[in-house]
Order: sequence, then structure tokens, then C-alpha cells
Amino acid sequence: MSNNSNNNSFGERSVELHRKLHGKIELKSKIPVLTRDDLSLAYTPGVAQPCLEINKNPEEVWNLTLKSHTVAVVTDGSAVLGLGNIGAAASIPVMEGKAVLFKELAGIDAFPIALNTQNVDEIVAAVKAIAPVFGGINLEDISAPRCFEVEEALRAELDIPVMHDDQHGTAMAVLAGLLNALKVTGKSISTVNIIINGAGAAGIAVAKLLLTAGCQHISVVDTKGMIAAGRPDMNEHKTKLAEIINPEAHTGSLAEALVGTDVFIGLSKPGLLTGEMVKTMAPQAIIFAMANPTPEIMPDEALAAGAVVVATGRSDFPNQVNNALIFPGIFKGALQVRLRDFTPELKVAVAQAVANMIPNPTAEHILPSPLDREVASTVAQAVITFARK
Amino acid sequence: MSNNSNNNSFGERSVELHRKLHGKIELKSKIPVLTRDDLSLAYTPGVAQPCLEINKNPEEVWNLTLKSHTVAVVTDGSAVLGLGNIGAAASIPVMEGKAVLFKELAGIDAFPIALNTQNVDEIVAAVKAIAPVFGGINLEDISAPRCFEVEEALRAELDIPVMHDDQHGTAMAVLAGLLNALKVTGKSISTVNIIINGAGAAGIAVAKLLLTAGCQHISVVDTKGMIAAGRPDMNEHKTKLAEIINPEAHTGSLAEALVGTDVFIGLSKPGLLTGEMVKTMAPQAIIFAMANPTPEIMPDEALAAGAVVVATGRSDFPNQVNNALIFPGIFKGALQVRLRDFTPELKVAVAQAVANMIPNPTAEHILPSPLDREVASTVAQAVITFARK
Repeated sequence: MSNNSNNNSFGERSVELHRKLHGKIELKSKIPVLTRDDLSLAYTPGVAQPCLEINKNPEEVWNLTLKSHTVAVVTDGSAVLGLGNIGAAASIPVMEGKAVLFKELAGIDAFPIALNTQNVDEIVAAVKAIAPVFGGINLEDISAPRCFEVEEALRAELDIPVMHDDQHGTAMAVLAGLLNALKVTGKSISTVNIIINGAGAAGIAVAKLLLTAGCQHISVVDTKGMIAAGRPDMNEHKTKLAEIINPEAHTGSLAEALVGTDVFIGLSKPGLLTGEMVKTMAPQAIIFAMANPTPEIMPDEALAAGAVVVATGRSDFPNQVNNALIFPGIFKGALQVRLRDFTPELKVAVAQAVANMIPNPTAEHILPSPLDREVASTVAQAVITFARK
Repeated sequence: MSNNSNNNSFGERSVELHRKLHGKIELKSKIPVLTRDDLSLAYTPGVAQPCLEINKNPEEVWNLTLKSHTVAVVTDGSAVLGLGNIGAAASIPVMEGKAVLFKELAGIDAFPIALNTQNVDEIVAAVKAIAPVFGGINLEDISAPRCFEVEEALRAELDIPVMHDDQHGTAMAVLAGLLNALKVTGKSISTVNIIINGAGAAGIAVAKLLLTAGCQHISVVDTKGMIAAGRPDMNEHKTKLAEIINPEAHTGSLAEALVGTDVFIGLSKPGLLTGEMVKTMAPQAIIFAMANPTPEIMPDEALAAGAVVVATGRSDFPNQVNNALIFPGIFKGALQVRLRDFTPELKVAVAQAVANMIPNPTAEHILPSPLDREVASTVAQAVITFARK
């Protein structure tokens, strides 16, 4: 089967599954309600007492309610998968899918919040309003640059961790894979030249995290070429990043920038990287072609052109770089220590922990499987260890 | 054990239970995530197809997501049980309790939304923003008159049913009980004289529903006496009601108003009704003393003073008038027919259906038990039948 018919087949089967089950998640009561006694404990009159305990000591909300194990998966439906701005209602199957992964991979309860607004202030106000019941906020599929503003405002105003997964989940998964790809090729993070193709939410977040992790030669390319200090037509997020990574304002197209480069990280569109371009890269090239479902270059073509490690976002090739390696565990750990914020240093520690799960990485095995239940507990432990330091 | 030590004991046991379980609800995935195939159906790439189906045909959100079986239980924490304005976080145990009852009594998934704001416009904006994922909105424990404004705005702006349970759940449960109490005493709804003591959210809602049901002689008493057309110091909701039920502006205290009356409905405070006052009522008096946990008058005292039917909100006396008779089933029925609004006439039909579950009511048995699983399906069927007419 070709990839397209494969995806179509998954698509049809997925529609059938969603239709049969009416979505993928449901609530579950942890207690029975069969007797008057049950009712008096779960509801009135008994329930007044836990309410009063929380009223007296606000920290008790973490002990007496669902807050300690519950995360909101929040979207405005503006950048759903590769489908674009399909709106709140149409995004719900993805948000339920994340809730399924939170529960199945990490035992965390996540509830989908699909917001009927794409206005930054309204998104921020709605999330702030509903925050009391949640121990963390996973922002999802919100388009750039709106996603930066929403995340920044919520991080400043809430006392629970807020993470836009498309940015930071991706960045941590990429860094984890890159750390092991560098081991495979015998290169060092501080000396490799890296091109990131795509300057949307994910591209910018990957660049920032790689800087924190010690990369010193990063170029970011968008549809108009390298982002560069002083280049007009850039939003403030690109401008700020360009001043750090390209203050001398070097210019160039993707093909020009790639010559002699060690690492290509694509967070862009299918087919933008050719075998000819890979041939111009440094020996032992590393390719992360993450456009989904069709990568910037197919793995066989990249390998034929001399690349040594090739990763994609897909499960049907080796080295799948998948946010599911990160988000279930990072929130699980955060909830356990009641973390208030994910710092860049914590994100590097999480990526290192995932990388360290593969003691002897090879060209075809740089990352654990997202289905491996050990991943979430390893990531959670990394968060806990980091927070206690 | 006295009632107080009983409640204390429930309170302590309830705190223990909440602490042990960290609240009372959790999420559940309806599908496993063990294989790549599972992942491809629940999440990418398969999940894109249900998203596209909803984008193409918005009605599909009812078929392909949790919307068709999920309700939000929304509060601002301003009037929680009898505890008052204890805030959002402290209200969560009650909201989780309602979610437990929704699930256990009707199989409906309800999620607690405790809002970190008590501003009407902000509450309305937040609920509108999060509405796409829900098939109905159960407003809960919001103080008057804010609750009227919030409900009115949301009913006007949303295409899913919105119900403030403290008003309408209470009103329907009272009407159901009253219909059977009238059968027991051989009185007629159109001729009985009814005093409602308490003109908060519940008192006003009960008065309105009794009017719809055909009551023609209703007086409502607040802390200053009978509400009356032209009486100053009343909010607009009391004023509007007074113009309907007391246009001649009769005045009087509760004790004065009670003389010769057939029915007392208390939605007020413990101990406001004395045996002496009951003795002044008409023969075969009906007393609904719903203050919680301590009623306006204890049942034995009311019976000793000549009342024939006595109902309370408590499970340890006969004739418990409990919202749990109504809210699980009314939303279950509404979700099945994708109802957009609960009209007064529908509410009367629901109350009649609950009353009809007791074919031969007696003084000690006017209502089914809230633990009886037949109640929710009977109520749901009443909604469906009404909607199809």
C-alpha cells in the first residue's frame, strides 16, 4: 500500500471508530452511588467538609480534588495538525486523542477544551477562568504568532505550568533525538552547524531549546531565506531570535545555507529538501524531516544522498520524533511536585533523560518508542529530580 | 446520634475519602493504545479524517466526539451548598459530586468547571468559549441575582441547553412532590393557596414553575415579608414576579401570610417555621421544609402541629426532595434529542413524569428515591417525548 492509501485507510477506520464510540474518552466515578451513605459522602451533607477544608487552606485543593491529576488540553482550532484553521469543534478529535495518550501513557487525566474564540485576550481570559480545576495547561494546535502571546500571558498569570506542546514538546523530542544522533555520528553539540527549516511555532521553539542546550551555530530559514538581524518582514519572535543567532545578518536560501552543514531539522513542508541538497552537506549528515504526514525528504532518498541518521515524525520509519515522548511524562512529573513553570533548563534535562533511555544509539535507533510505558515515568522522574535540585 | 454528629461524621469520612482518592472522578479512554495501529487511529494520521468530517459538516461533532454525552457543571463558587461564597477551588468537591451523580445515575459524562471569576460578563464569556465540547451546561451554586443574568445570557447565546440547577432542578423536584402531596390530601393545584418562603434563586424559580403548572394562589415571602407590586427594596426579578402574583400589593409577615394556607414551601433558613404557625394553616396542610441540612421545621414537629404531608431535602426522613431526581435525566434526554433549550412547559412535563412514578402516593411516599436508576430514564423519556411533540 502506498502511504496515501495507508493514511486514507487509517482515516476511514478512524471515522468509523469515532462514530461507533462517540469520541474516545468518558468520565469515570471513583466511587459507587448505591446507598444513602454513598450519597451522603460523595454529595450532601458530607461534601461540605472537604469544601471547607479547601476554603480554610487553599493548598488542600491539590489533595481533595481532581486537580492533582488533571490537565486541560486547550486549543482554539487555528492550526490543527497539518489541516490549518479548521475551528474549535473540528479540532476535538485531536484533543480527545491527546487525552487518550495522557491517560494511557502516563495515567494522567486530561480534558479537551476547544475554545470558540481565536482572540488572544479571550483565549487567555477563558483559560484563566477555568484554571482552578486543573494542575496544568497543555496548549495545542494554536497558530503562530498567537500561540507565543497566549503562552506568555498564561505563564505569567497562572500558578500552574502552561506548555504549548507544538512548540516545546516538539523541541524536547527533537533535542532528545539529536543528542543521540550526535553520538552516532561522533559530533559535538557545541560545534555542529544546524539549519532549522521553518520559523513557525515549532521552528522557533526548537532553535531556542538548542541554544539552551549549547548549540552555537544555528541558522533558521523561512520561506524568504535565512532569518537575519535587521531583515524586514519578520514578526517580533523571528526578529528577537535573529538578533541572537544571526546578528551579522548573513543571508541565503535553504540550498545556500545547507552547504557544509551537519544537521538539517525540517519543521516545514513536504518535499522541500532534495537529495542534491543533502549531497552538499557535511559528511555524516543528520536529517530530521518532520513535516507530517509527508516529510521534507523521504528517508531512503536522504540516506542515498549520504545522510547517516534520518528521523521523521512517522511511525512507519525508524527514529520517530513524536511529542508523545514528552507531554504525558512532563505533566505527570509536574503534577507530582506541583511545579509552577517549565523552564528552558528543565526542558533540556527532560530531553537528556529521553536520550539516555537508549544507552547505545545506532543510526536506526536514536529514540524510544512512544508506546513504551517507561518513557513517561522516565520523563516524570527527570522533572521531579530537576525540581528538587 | 444527633443530626449534627451525624453530619460531622459524614464530613470527616468524606474528607478521608476525598483525600485517599484525590477527588472522585477520573477520565477513561475508550480505546487502548498498545500498538502503532492504535496510535494511528486515535491520533495521527487517522484522526485527521474525523476532524475533516466535522469541518465539512458541523453536525458531525455530535457523532464523532464526546459532545453527545458530555455536560459541563459550571460554578463561580459564590453560593456553594449552604456555605456561601467560598470561591471556585473550594467548590470543586461539590461539582465533582454532581459529576459522580450524572455518571452513576444517568451514564452522562459531566466535567466540573469552577470559574475563577464572579463577574457576570466574564462568566458568560468563559462558558461561551468552552461550549463547543459540551452538549449541555449545568450551572451550579451561583448566587442570585447573578445566576439569573448568567443563565439568561447563555440561554440566548448558546445552541445547547443551559440550566441553573439550583433554580430549575429544585423547582421541578418540588413540583413533582407537590403534585403527589396534593393527591394525598385531595386538593387541586388550581385552588390551593401556596406560600413560598425565600425569594432567592430557588424560591423565584419554584414560584414561576408553579405558575406554569396552573397554581393560581402563590405568595412569596422574603426577610421583609410578602413580595408585592410596588414594594421598594426588591431586585428586578422579585419585582417582575410580584407584579404577576401580587399585583394588589398585599402585605404581611410569614406568620400573617400563612394563616389559612394549604402549602408551605420553604427555601430559606433553619427554624423559620414553628408548630404554632403550622396550626394556623388550612386543614391537611402540606409542608416542604427544604432548608439544608436543617429544615425550616423538623418533620415530627410539623406533623404534631397538624400537617399531613411533610417533605425535606434530607435522605433520613421520608419524602426527600432532591435535585438528583431531575438533573441527570433531563440532560440525558436533552442530549439524546439534541435539545437546544428547556422550556417551562418541558419542566412541567418532567415533574409530572417523576410524580407519575408513584402510582399510589401516600403521606410518607410522594417521591421516588434519587438512588432509583429508573428515575433518570423516566425523566429522559419525558424530555424525548416532549421534544418530539
